[in-house]
Amino acid sequence: MTSTIVSPSPDDGGQGRRPRLVMKFGGTSVADLDRIRGAAEKVAAEAARGYDVAVIVSAMAGETNKLVDYVRDISTLYDAREYDAVVAAGEQVTSGLMALTLQQLGVPARSWQGWQIPIRTVGPHGAARIDRIDTEALEQKFGEQLHAVVSGFQGLGPDNRIATLGRGGSDTSAVALAAAIGAERCDIYTDVDGVYTTDPRIESRARKIHNISFDEMLELASLGAKVLQTRAVGLAKNHKVRLQVLSTFEDRIGSEWPGTLVCDEDEIQQKILEGEMESQVVSGVAFSRDEAKITLQRVDDRPGVAAAIFGPLARAGVNVDMIVQNISAGTRTDMTFTVTLADFDRAISAMEAAREDIGYENLVKDDNVSKVSVVGVGMRSHTGVAQKMFQALADDGVNIQVITTSEIKVSVLVERKYMELAVQALHAAFQLERAPRAETA
Amino acid sequence: MTSTIVSPSPDDGGQGRRPRLVMKFGGTSVADLDRIRGAAEKVAAEAARGYDVAVIVSAMAGETNKLVDYVRDISTLYDAREYDAVVAAGEQVTSGLMALTLQQLGVPARSWQGWQIPIRTVGPHGAARIDRIDTEALEQKFGEQLHAVVSGFQGLGPDNRIATLGRGGSDTSAVALAAAIGAERCDIYTDVDGVYTTDPRIESRARKIHNISFDEMLELASLGAKVLQTRAVGLAKNHKVRLQVLSTFEDRIGSEWPGTLVCDEDEIQQKILEGEMESQVVSGVAFSRDEAKITLQRVDDRPGVAAAIFGPLARAGVNVDMIVQNISAGTRTDMTFTVTLADFDRAISAMEAAREDIGYENLVKDDNVSKVSVVGVGMRSHTGVAQKMFQALADDGVNIQVITTSEIKVSVLVERKYMELAVQALHAAFQLERAPRAETA
Repeated sequence: MTSTIVSPSPDDGGQGRRPRLVMKFGGTSVADLDRIRGAAEKVAAEAARGYDVAVIVSAMAGETNKLVDYVRDISTLYDAREYDAVVAAGEQVTSGLMALTLQQLGVPARSWQGWQIPIRTVGPHGAARIDRIDTEALEQKFGEQLHAVVSGFQGLGPDNRIATLGRGGSDTSAVALAAAIGAERCDIYTDVDGVYTTDPRIESRARKIHNISFDEMLELASLGAKVLQTRAVGLAKNHKVRLQVLSTFEDRIGSEWPGTLVCDEDEIQQKILEGEMESQVVSGVAFSRDEAKITLQRVDDRPGVAAAIFGPLARAGVNVDMIVQNISAGTRTDMTFTVTLADFDRAISAMEAAREDIGYENLVKDDNVSKVSVVGVGMRSHTGVAQKMFQALADDGVNIQVITTSEIKVSVLVERKYMELAVQALHAAFQLERAPRAETA
Repeated sequence: MTSTIVSPSPDDGGQGRRPRLVMKFGGTSVADLDRIRGAAEKVAAEAARGYDVAVIVSAMAGETNKLVDYVRDISTLYDAREYDAVVAAGEQVTSGLMALTLQQLGVPARSWQGWQIPIRTVGPHGAARIDRIDTEALEQKFGEQLHAVVSGFQGLGPDNRIATLGRGGSDTSAVALAAAIGAERCDIYTDVDGVYTTDPRIESRARKIHNISFDEMLELASLGAKVLQTRAVGLAKNHKVRLQVLSTFEDRIGSEWPGTLVCDEDEIQQKILEGEMESQVVSGVAFSRDEAKITLQRVDDRPGVAAAIFGPLARAGVNVDMIVQNISAGTRTDMTFTVTLADFDRAISAMEAAREDIGYENLVKDDNVSKVSVVGVGMRSHTGVAQKMFQALADDGVNIQVITTSEIKVSVLVERKYMELAVQALHAAFQLERAPRAETA
């Protein structure tokens, strides 16, 4: 039995129109004219299968950095509207080149800039959010059998100026467009061939995941499996856009060769019911190497003390991850939180400045920790995941410093030198090297 | 007495608004961030004099070629609409960077892309013409003391897509915008400091011209003094936009230091009347080195024969320059015309293919000729210019092969090896090394 996570043939969704597919190619996938040609061949193959394709392209690798450097060299406090005008030029070039390459392959196509569609954005320049996409013009061209090549990462702000979505925003562009045109799937072509049960550089038995739910992907993405932009996954979840991550360097297309499909939990449940795949409790082991831990000892245990701590951190631009408050001893409590190593110094400064306000006795800092997490929707129905995790770590002599849990994730903080060991131990304990039955066929 | 070809102080044109100035910087003037800074300093200086400035920028030197090469590498018969999307990105980058640099210098400014203003174009992509410019939004921003940085070379086509004006189109953008906003002057900053009486590489005594009429500039531009795009000069003439050509690498600005002012003949006449400058019969000596001459001997002298000759040449894409028909000998005549060396082979093929239609006896070809011309509006009122020209050439033993004349130009064809000698002889004969009185002060 073969996997059928992707449709064997396109489906018109009962709307009397050709089915639609979004294909997104990142910077390394369009790094030069040869690679653009390779990407265009994949588009041609999907078009030949009967899809109306909307291709989303990033800037050619290195271009965005070059443009960003120009802006930063001119001024440190730059006008984000001008930054947007400058950096959006990178995608504009790729979209035109991709359209030309498709035409050269006999695939009728045209380029669309964000302002042409338009993709309307709100929010600050340089970090805008997509508000709505007017797909009328684009869909009319689909009706004329004209495939679309859309510049990712950019839209049109309320001020009628180019607005960019922030770095990695092309994933978001792709998902938003897929939602707007009702695409059957949004294929994200990148330089890895999918999402793995953990980083193969740490655990060589890591295995490609063929099906994963949005929620699991969100936990994995934010924890280090940096394949998909978190914002794009969140958007896909909200609009139930089926996302597929796959390699641009494999000689196969998304409709023929499964990468990792990120989809609704219901779709996964359905596949399990139909015997296409086995249920798994844990889907992957994520980690974050460079974490730091700060403990405020003997904090006054009064209402408002949490605000007194996390307010100054937020104002200092520090992202706080895990937060643990120990049980109070009398009127005093200990508060522990983690930040990334990059934010560590700023966090310490903020806490020292706020010492009087908070009223803690002692600040204990540790910049030598890593976070390791197991993620899986199966935890919702299976008990004992945390216990199994703690046991596996204990068996290998890994001390757990902090624990936090969510509905589908258990995270622990460990001393940094134990991180790889912890990842390997958990990968083995949950038998993640074992492919779900259907996927081995 | 100093020259006052440029206003010593801005003039509000009696419209109760700040005077306006267009400043155009070509690719070498914005080749890198340092040069953009240098250009921005000139803008800042003009802004400090009280102008609302519209800056027109080209792509950074080399960028347009890079983008054009991308397109050509992909496909020889490219879609001009995609070509336009790709190459227009170059100006987009410069306009954003220029706006940022101005802000950094404390000069409030924002960038405008062609589609944002919009600059409406008509005609084919890649060679569009500016139809109209809606200046309302831009002028409103002037009212808020916000200077404009406009991407040259581009506009918005009737199809709502980016349209480019063809190579060198930024000069046209500058002139059109100057006309649309009623600018006091359009300063074209380039890598030479003005228009010369002839090419200084051929005649070291060549002198910078401080005042020249549109008509003279048109004759000089098309003949080899390739400082200004002919189309831009024609547009300036039609809209009476005062153009100034000056060097971007001099540490002076257009309002303080005269380059070459190209203006209406009336303005020049006025200056002569007011004693600011002397009248000159001849303004410059132009030349075109690589010409070729074709003579069709004993052509049937009948109505329609000219069409039989020049029709096939036009269809072959050959630009014919001089045309001379000798007096008929009976029912037969000789027809001579010149083409550029680049068109020579195609012209010969076209004539050989059309031999029967035309009915000539013999085709004589000569690809070893150059054209030398004297240009000057003074010829209109002064007789004897042609005679003086022929005498000067005869004195130096230069044989004249073909002569054509227009109202303000006399051109001769000479053997190529005599070209430099002819230019030098004519420059001396008309005393062009001598500065008009007022300009020496």
